[in-house]
Amino acid sequence: MDRIKSVGVIGAGMAGLACAGALQAAGIPVALFEKSRGVGGRMATRRTESGSAFDHGAQYFTVRDLRFRQQVEQWCLAGTAALWLGRIIRLEQGVISELNEPIDRYVGLPAMNSIAKSLASKLNVNLNCTIQSIHSFDDGWGLTDSNQVLHGPFGRLVLAIPPQQAIQLTQANLGATQALICDIELAPCWAVMVQFEQRFDVPYDAAFVHQAPFTWVARNSSKPGRDTSDCWVLHASPEWTKEHLEQPADQVAGQLLDEFWHVTGQSPQPVAALAAHRWRFAIPRKPLQQRSIFDPKQRLGLCGDWCGGPRIEGAFLSGIAMAEAILNSPS
Amino acid sequence: MDRIKSVGVIGAGMAGLACAGALQAAGIPVALFEKSRGVGGRMATRRTESGSAFDHGAQYFTVRDLRFRQQVEQWCLAGTAALWLGRIIRLEQGVISELNEPIDRYVGLPAMNSIAKSLASKLNVNLNCTIQSIHSFDDGWGLTDSNQVLHGPFGRLVLAIPPQQAIQLTQANLGATQALICDIELAPCWAVMVQFEQRFDVPYDAAFVHQAPFTWVARNSSKPGRDTSDCWVLHASPEWTKEHLEQPADQVAGQLLDEFWHVTGQSPQPVAALAAHRWRFAIPRKPLQQRSIFDPKQRLGLCGDWCGGPRIEGAFLSGIAMAEAILNSPS
Repeated sequence: MDRIKSVGVIGAGMAGLACAGALQAAGIPVALFEKSRGVGGRMATRRTESGSAFDHGAQYFTVRDLRFRQQVEQWCLAGTAALWLGRIIRLEQGVISELNEPIDRYVGLPAMNSIAKSLASKLNVNLNCTIQSIHSFDDGWGLTDSNQVLHGPFGRLVLAIPPQQAIQLTQANLGATQALICDIELAPCWAVMVQFEQRFDVPYDAAFVHQAPFTWVARNSSKPGRDTSDCWVLHASPEWTKEHLEQPADQVAGQLLDEFWHVTGQSPQPVAALAAHRWRFAIPRKPLQQRSIFDPKQRLGLCGDWCGGPRIEGAFLSGIAMAEAILNSPS
Repeated sequence: MDRIKSVGVIGAGMAGLACAGALQAAGIPVALFEKSRGVGGRMATRRTESGSAFDHGAQYFTVRDLRFRQQVEQWCLAGTAALWLGRIIRLEQGVISELNEPIDRYVGLPAMNSIAKSLASKLNVNLNCTIQSIHSFDDGWGLTDSNQVLHGPFGRLVLAIPPQQAIQLTQANLGATQALICDIELAPCWAVMVQFEQRFDVPYDAAFVHQAPFTWVARNSSKPGRDTSDCWVLHASPEWTKEHLEQPADQVAGQLLDEFWHVTGQSPQPVAALAAHRWRFAIPRKPLQQRSIFDPKQRLGLCGDWCGGPRIEGAFLSGIAMAEAILNSPS
């Protein structure tokens, strides 16, 4: 007996949005619950007080799978995404080298969060709503938010959140799934946003940095549709981030800026704006081989970029796979 | 016995947002439910395919009340609102005259919907969520959305929606309030958005039009922070709108554009983009004298710009008054 058709999805990052969109397209009512003020998770854009916008989380996305390609083509046609034609190189001990594998890199337009906004525009999304506990009953799920407001019933529940948070929310009641996911780590990442007063004069727009403390630096303003002020995003390595995880953001920003001069071999130059953001759950290590997890008995599913692949494309395909698992499950 | 502290607010226009913000500031948990994809109601901004943005609903706001002034000053300091310094005149039968009363006019920055976005940024808002029915029980309210998902319980419920919709949602069960509000009409308004290929050459930026079919025309791009393409918003009168209420939007757009040449005395010129939007509930006629309605027995409140004043300021003050009534009601 399954009288309740609707699906609740906790987490409105790429996986949750893709899952909800695919379910809704198949005629299933869906509601998303997101603890932060906007959708997109790490596909994020932050605006500084100076008005400049930085993609401080996910930097770009690539396309391998045919279904994702079709989606990306739609975004490009709608002006929601575009190719990033900046010059991207490899940087190690001051030596610049070309990347071996040329690959198309896409970004949201006019900012990375445009993709998620577009996916969410027709979905029921509950923002600034932290789900504190979930309750399973005969034929569905109820959710309680941090204001003690209940939402439901939902016939099925999807947790599109990091595995550690899923374990916590289910009170370690995931059965066989638990062993599968408890070792999946999402490594943290300190991101620095810096706006220079004048153009920072290096012969590239972004670099995969093979030198501590960075893994990546990028001229945000080399992406299409961005404003012209010279804005850069710097990503610290998981190792450096872990060592400085609880340090205040302004200290981290200053320290990493110092390192930036060193790693790029440039002398310090005037900065118009500087900020840092800590991503506590950023980069999946050893993602699961399967694209999504669905327990038909519990009517509970899990998805995310830690399922199937550590990329935006992986998160999208994980969400789609989650929706398909639900659509194919016995009612 | 009032164990449930939280308040549910249906409608995330200015009144609902102001009410929710004031309650949350007083420590009351609040959840907003909004049927459309974004917050702000008529404080709206629409982007055409060409990428131009139009404030197609509320055009500006004025400030009389001290509390609203304090709020507007905060918005201006934060870069969320600014003075509109365009030249605004009166237009009648081709004759331009100056307005008698000079008054400061403010707009959202960079678009009218910025105000609502700012108010909503820390509030729990459930978007694309149509509340279909409400249920009163011993000490609270439950809401059912169009997906048959329940939300609640809320100790008190606020309907920040047009009176006709409030009557419908309560199934005409508003007691004495019903007689008070059933005659309040929100007149409709057809709004046309037109982008000219070159600057439309008239010696003003906006006009109160005293000639059918318009009441108002404005150069949207004369507002601060807008892009520079010459975008205009035209508002048809309630009378004309009612006569053409069910006409297709593209027909309405073409017809009103023809009238625009006539009313402004200009010859037709090339148009880059043209669209029309129908506001079914736009302009309160004979608003209520009181700022808000709260029935402590039903634990149900109503607010909106049809309570106390037909302006953005009126909607804000109505929401604040609603919050105060709730905070002062016996628990």
